[in-house]
Amino acid sequence: MENITLDRCCIHTITTKPWALPEAVEKYAAAGIKGVSVWTNAIEGLGPKRAGELIREAGLEIVSYVRGGFFPHSSSAGRAQAIEQNKKLLEEAAALSAPMIVLVCGASPDQSMQQSREQIREGIEAILPLAEKLNVKLAIEPLHPMYAADRSAINTLAQANDMAEHFRSTYLGVAVDVYHLWWDGDLEKEIARCGANRNLFAYHVCDWKVKTLDFLNDRGLMGEGCIDLKKIRGWVEAAGFNGFCEVEIFSDIHWAKDQNIFLKEVTDAFVKTV
Amino acid sequence: MENITLDRCCIHTITTKPWALPEAVEKYAAAGIKGVSVWTNAIEGLGPKRAGELIREAGLEIVSYVRGGFFPHSSSAGRAQAIEQNKKLLEEAAALSAPMIVLVCGASPDQSMQQSREQIREGIEAILPLAEKLNVKLAIEPLHPMYAADRSAINTLAQANDMAEHFRSTYLGVAVDVYHLWWDGDLEKEIARCGANRNLFAYHVCDWKVKTLDFLNDRGLMGEGCIDLKKIRGWVEAAGFNGFCEVEIFSDIHWAKDQNIFLKEVTDAFVKTV
Repeated sequence: MENITLDRCCIHTITTKPWALPEAVEKYAAAGIKGVSVWTNAIEGLGPKRAGELIREAGLEIVSYVRGGFFPHSSSAGRAQAIEQNKKLLEEAAALSAPMIVLVCGASPDQSMQQSREQIREGIEAILPLAEKLNVKLAIEPLHPMYAADRSAINTLAQANDMAEHFRSTYLGVAVDVYHLWWDGDLEKEIARCGANRNLFAYHVCDWKVKTLDFLNDRGLMGEGCIDLKKIRGWVEAAGFNGFCEVEIFSDIHWAKDQNIFLKEVTDAFVKTV
Repeated sequence: MENITLDRCCIHTITTKPWALPEAVEKYAAAGIKGVSVWTNAIEGLGPKRAGELIREAGLEIVSYVRGGFFPHSSSAGRAQAIEQNKKLLEEAAALSAPMIVLVCGASPDQSMQQSREQIREGIEAILPLAEKLNVKLAIEPLHPMYAADRSAINTLAQANDMAEHFRSTYLGVAVDVYHLWWDGDLEKEIARCGANRNLFAYHVCDWKVKTLDFLNDRGLMGEGCIDLKKIRGWVEAAGFNGFCEVEIFSDIHWAKDQNIFLKEVTDAFVKTV
């Protein structure tokens, strides 16, 4: 497999959380990074239109807007509110000129996983017409089973593929994140299936630390953990994906550092291990 | 589905970790509990033979000896040592008169999951003849994917079923633990498959707390979390299992309590929610 260059490197703004968007995009661009995925908190104050201009003026491409979803609720009012919130996010993505929204689909611990998945299906159905109208794609991100109680009832790539294939829309696909999926014995097969159905919309990288300390904010920098990133990139590329590899790291440890030093670690790790 | 009584309640000694074995079995028996699964640390000092006598004298049945496994290592010396350790545990189980050993199969973060699974297969193959000779069964316990890096490369019931079916031995089966498997969309189907192949050897219960604080020691008491225990027991019983429901809880929070109070909570929760 070919080595990767920074031309395919995209950073999620949350990765360098201490930086506000203007500083982040300036630093990313200066480091030779070409893409950015924008978290909702990053555009607060600026608004989506100005944020989009600022990013493009820095010479960066917007890869995705992060994140919509959280459709399941045991009350119908809660579900209706989630749909409205997702429509608002789609409008923001359009104003930002982001081509895609990542969906963390949600789960509600007071009902069955099956009920939550049904409500996810209904939620996607309700927002897909607006996504098409605004020309913003939706990418279902299956989440690690340790988030099954309240973050996502879609916990394997097989389940995400099922959902995407149910709709057969060019506006609905899947975001493959190694952190959530590396452990799955069916991963190679399901990545191939995802690509064959033209549903492989995004590829996210970080690492799984062998001794993980926190359920949310202890993701590893690529190379710090046990994920065979080159092998999985090989599968993703064999499935036809040649887009950005998006670095998405939530880490109290890395956020506590000087972010200039951390960004250098990210770019070094990217070309070496992704 | 019928309500359950304490006649089918077994407690893992680790659940009341602050109690030494003599106190634990006395208290379990007084509470009306009928079974105990013995952790290796519980027989230290006593030895397996005396521990077994003490448990039977209290009127309790030994359900399993916990736990063997941890077969994968990147060095052949490490793998050979693991096999020797498992043979030693089998001899201890026989001296204890425990009918079964639970296997936490292991994983090594410096090699692929597939390599680890192959080494698990080799390890089981190496100890199965002794298990048969000593009349001690082996139960593969699939572990939650959050333990895939260094505790188990077998993370779904499908993978455990595959492994058990590979050997087709009446001495090798599976331990279904709700903590590890509740999130799996294929759980009902795989429990049925496990039963149909006569591989459903054990059933472990506790709960998954929606906000779990620790990767190891924050399991919930039944009813504290989001697992639909009655539904899963229904699946297990439909698959032909009518043995003990084994309470296995690791919890810094519950261990910090007066264990007499905690045991009362366990038995109350058992008859109400399991």
